[in-house]
Amino acid sequence: MNITRQQKLAGLFRAFLNHESVVDQPTSLAAYECDGLSAYRQTPLLVVLPETVEQVQQVVALCDEHRVPIVSRGAGTGLSGGALPHEDGIVLSLTKMDSILNIDALSRTVVVEAGVRNLAVSEAVAHHGLYYAPDPSSQIACTIGGNVAENAGGVHCLKYGLTLHNILGVKLVMSSGELISIDQRSMQSQGYDLLALLIGSEGMLGVVVEITLKLLPIPECARVVMGVFDDVEKAGNSVADIIARGIIPAGIELMDNLAIRAAEDFVHAGYPVEAEAILICELDGTAAEVESQIKRVETVMNASGASETRLAKDEAERLLFWSGRKAAFPAVGRLSPDYYCIDGTIPRKTLGVVLNEIRRLSEAYKLPVANVFHAGDGNLHPLILYDANVEGALEKTEELGSKILQLCIAQGGTITGEHGVGVEKIGEMCLQFSNLERNLFHALRDSFDTNGIMNPGKAIPTMARCAEFNAMHVHDGKLAFPELERF
Amino acid sequence: MNITRQQKLAGLFRAFLNHESVVDQPTSLAAYECDGLSAYRQTPLLVVLPETVEQVQQVVALCDEHRVPIVSRGAGTGLSGGALPHEDGIVLSLTKMDSILNIDALSRTVVVEAGVRNLAVSEAVAHHGLYYAPDPSSQIACTIGGNVAENAGGVHCLKYGLTLHNILGVKLVMSSGELISIDQRSMQSQGYDLLALLIGSEGMLGVVVEITLKLLPIPECARVVMGVFDDVEKAGNSVADIIARGIIPAGIELMDNLAIRAAEDFVHAGYPVEAEAILICELDGTAAEVESQIKRVETVMNASGASETRLAKDEAERLLFWSGRKAAFPAVGRLSPDYYCIDGTIPRKTLGVVLNEIRRLSEAYKLPVANVFHAGDGNLHPLILYDANVEGALEKTEELGSKILQLCIAQGGTITGEHGVGVEKIGEMCLQFSNLERNLFHALRDSFDTNGIMNPGKAIPTMARCAEFNAMHVHDGKLAFPELERF
Repeated sequence: MNITRQQKLAGLFRAFLNHESVVDQPTSLAAYECDGLSAYRQTPLLVVLPETVEQVQQVVALCDEHRVPIVSRGAGTGLSGGALPHEDGIVLSLTKMDSILNIDALSRTVVVEAGVRNLAVSEAVAHHGLYYAPDPSSQIACTIGGNVAENAGGVHCLKYGLTLHNILGVKLVMSSGELISIDQRSMQSQGYDLLALLIGSEGMLGVVVEITLKLLPIPECARVVMGVFDDVEKAGNSVADIIARGIIPAGIELMDNLAIRAAEDFVHAGYPVEAEAILICELDGTAAEVESQIKRVETVMNASGASETRLAKDEAERLLFWSGRKAAFPAVGRLSPDYYCIDGTIPRKTLGVVLNEIRRLSEAYKLPVANVFHAGDGNLHPLILYDANVEGALEKTEELGSKILQLCIAQGGTITGEHGVGVEKIGEMCLQFSNLERNLFHALRDSFDTNGIMNPGKAIPTMARCAEFNAMHVHDGKLAFPELERF
Repeated sequence: MNITRQQKLAGLFRAFLNHESVVDQPTSLAAYECDGLSAYRQTPLLVVLPETVEQVQQVVALCDEHRVPIVSRGAGTGLSGGALPHEDGIVLSLTKMDSILNIDALSRTVVVEAGVRNLAVSEAVAHHGLYYAPDPSSQIACTIGGNVAENAGGVHCLKYGLTLHNILGVKLVMSSGELISIDQRSMQSQGYDLLALLIGSEGMLGVVVEITLKLLPIPECARVVMGVFDDVEKAGNSVADIIARGIIPAGIELMDNLAIRAAEDFVHAGYPVEAEAILICELDGTAAEVESQIKRVETVMNASGASETRLAKDEAERLLFWSGRKAAFPAVGRLSPDYYCIDGTIPRKTLGVVLNEIRRLSEAYKLPVANVFHAGDGNLHPLILYDANVEGALEKTEELGSKILQLCIAQGGTITGEHGVGVEKIGEMCLQFSNLERNLFHALRDSFDTNGIMNPGKAIPTMARCAEFNAMHVHDGKLAFPELERF
């Protein structure tokens, strides 16, 4: 580390920030060396924790002047390494900016600072009968700023949309330190849609400091029905069948046998441990609507080959059915020293085919894979079980993960549904997009950030990086699954 | 006109286009000198009418090489002058590219060429029980390509969204002539949201040649209820009241007395000619849903001060109620030699206040204004009646129009809801956006179109243009309604 540069910068920041808001001690810096993707680690030069929009502006302007890379960070729960520090840069933590600024129950909106936790929003507006819909599984900890950076999803995004669909405006500190407001509250058709461009841009276009969120009325009624299947492919096809009937469940999750058994051992949710797959399907709305839709869902599940359907008889059992799903990641984690969560999307109609192919790959790589995922969205989350202490195991796991993502692309899907690209999937971006498209992305980024200080090296690969990736992982830029390109 | 340049270019285009697909005769060029905003006219150098994507690519690449401005055009029904020709440029007409390429009833999508008419889509898929939701009033004639350029709306956009919300992907010819596919069919969070950036970009980022549209099932049932009011402000507030109850009508339109009388004289829809305002509110869905919602809407209308509500007793009367609304523009047109349609948005809760202020402005300018508009969206369409043969009348009308748009901005609204900026509202863009924001727009545009050949001079004003606008229309860059900025 360049101590002189570190201390010089710390001095500049301390001219307008509290001494303890500028972190420069190695022991304290270590807490920021990775996000939820802990396989990648890097100590930053400094961590700064501003408390006001003006302080963020000053920090950014100073970094722009001195060409210091900035990695913005919320709770650090991201799973693709988007908040991995830059060795010559600072981490700009927004956790001290955690005020809920304005609740407007009439227009069903709330204005929050970027560091407000996702669940804190719903808690703060619950007494108005309202809630904030996107619910990533890290919602207790993750921040709204981080949700915007990654376009976070969750169980209920099938019906209520991703972060993109639930944000009405943001305040953005540009790389120059200037502040702009982007407001899409009215229908409009002037200027370019900057809000859509920003959401999911992984901290590369500026620092989002304030966000206006859309709130929804808490549904009058929610019920869960579980479908039990002796075959994963049948369960996958059942999801497509349900939605093809025009039923939009609040959420519909698929768990395979390995995940079912792990969850059942862990939380005793009453899952059928012999089943090859279960679907957990929640319907919400008025009591009459839910009643009629539950019946239709049961009929479709049976027609798609469910061996059984189980309706949660009351709210307690509804929560019990969910408890297994919610605990599935840590439950699977107990089966193996380490696990790696993959995030890709596929068209729903290919669910069955893809799940079978993942099983084949799992056998070929001799690495167990558990599947627990947002089936309604076609958003897969294969969990690869491995042991990081075995030499070469992480590399083999990453190779299997990359194969699964290539399978998603070959099926007409994408390399991330809700976790973002970060450092994790930057190689697969070379397969997902052409040179022309990637160059356009770089040009768009340059329009916001002339000096390239905002989270450099993430999300959009350079041409050199793609050349390297192709040489390592694919032959002549071809997908690993040429036979699947026909789908 | 530069004859030599015109003939040289015509020769280059005729190397790969039919002779008649390159229009260079003054009498034929005249048909392209304006779009629906006929107050602005300009003859282009040439009009070219390619028939294939490859021909569009060749035309664009050639124009890029020779730095020839391109104005893309569909049916020319746009109302903001977005398709006004450039004097040194060509008009690229997409009307010959009018094939419906693929209908997929199962996934409820259709792929069309840019020149396909809006209504032709719904006609082509009706036998599957499907339709395309956005319905601008020009839908018989206007093209999907034009709808994408302007992010077109319509009566049913309150419930079903603007063009933006009903497009799944496009093929875009870049200014270099290269073709890229932008596909948002899957939920995804990698790369930047190019689709959102393109929709409503008024032909300035490239030429959209192919579009994938989302289709919806034709609702089982649709009914209309009319609310009659003795006061425009009460009618405006009633719209906000209905939506605040969580009812989302398929459409809710407001007509004021001048519009009611004009429409009634013209089509005899059975409107109450003494009323100060009527609301035409359509509910759709299943029969049971519609029945229950109609009752709730009537209750809210009565509580907001309606003197009467009238339920269309059958499908024939439903269409009769709509006939007056649909004929309102030409009907108002019969009252005066000319009319000018303004397009702005405001927050719904300010409808009453704004309608009163428009009345005050109308009296001050001594120009009658009729109001017929998408009240549910807060999307105003004041029609200013004037006589273009009276010297200075157009200028006075434009000044009143600009005042109305400034009023929208002061209320927290926008200068266009669905017609776009084009040449018409380019001055007001200086009020809507800051220098910083406009510079960002220019930089984004440059990322797509390095040489600035795509529809130059439209939609995003230069700094010089804003300086000129401010000098002419506002004092020191201040709004005309400083007292309203508090709203």
